[in-house]
Amino acid sequence: MADVAAKARKILVAVDESEESTYALSWCIENIITGNTNDALILLYSIPPRAVYSSLDGTGEKDNPEGYLFSSDILATMERYSNEVAQCVMEKAKRLCKDLDGVKVETIVERGDARDVICQVAERLHVDMLVMGSHGYGVIKRAFLGSVSNHCAQNVKCPVLIVKKPKTNGTSK
Amino acid sequence: MADVAAKARKILVAVDESEESTYALSWCIENIITGNTNDALILLYSIPPRAVYSSLDGTGEKDNPEGYLFSSDILATMERYSNEVAQCVMEKAKRLCKDLDGVKVETIVERGDARDVICQVAERLHVDMLVMGSHGYGVIKRAFLGSVSNHCAQNVKCPVLIVKKPKTNGTSK
Repeated sequence: MADVAAKARKILVAVDESEESTYALSWCIENIITGNTNDALILLYSIPPRAVYSSLDGTGEKDNPEGYLFSSDILATMERYSNEVAQCVMEKAKRLCKDLDGVKVETIVERGDARDVICQVAERLHVDMLVMGSHGYGVIKRAFLGSVSNHCAQNVKCPVLIVKKPKTNGTSK
Repeated sequence: MADVAAKARKILVAVDESEESTYALSWCIENIITGNTNDALILLYSIPPRAVYSSLDGTGEKDNPEGYLFSSDILATMERYSNEVAQCVMEKAKRLCKDLDGVKVETIVERGDARDVICQVAERLHVDMLVMGSHGYGVIKRAFLGSVSNHCAQNVKCPVLIVKKPKTNGTSK
């Protein structure tokens, strides 16, 4: 009677290419999931919308009369590239989960703005908790990159766990 | 070998008089701590600084030449009141933890701005995770009340779990 079983939880972890994301997933596995074999872990990656690629070199659709960035060849290459990145991110994430005996791990890849995708999937799947990394510490960096975790923390209805990667200083000073 | 033990964690939960805080602690107990008897749970309440009381009725120190709000009687009453609130909050929080067999529960009460106190205690005790409720959903309400969780999420180095109390609509419409 004293040994109360841990609750089965459905945990959504947002993953991307960043070290912060890898750290957040590892931390979650080690500190939240390990020891609870009833959990379901959902790894979510959102492929950035196409508009992001078209402005990679600073040119927008309006400034690009030749349309060379939007040829079917380029689009197909971009599509292939983004799918490969998604696959790569998911393979890496799944490797981190390989020792989680009993835990059901599934992966979801969706296209769209990460902020929207994460909030939508969290609501749709009625997850018990959302886990995300946090990018950057500087004010400027956070204003752009960190806004995903801020946005989700404010807009997702379920509990949100934000895991920061500790600063590692290469220099001893 | 398949049954890997859960890690012992030091979890700091910020508590206050609000329903959101009570919900966050209950959620944390049920979803994070139950089943892991190695954990240490630290309940933290911060007594608001005195300046808050002096402006309760809209008068500030400068607008209060008689100084009646700052007589030693009033100050002693305020002090007693704030300590009673702290005690009441802690008693309620500890009652929620009473079924946590094996988990070491301790309480900390400090005076100061909740944002500063929570961040300072999290750093000082090297906790593994900070758990907080989130006040309010409206933009205006969040701008004032919700700023504690936002501030801590951005400034505390350890992982931060923000738990929102689900909206309960009294009316069926």
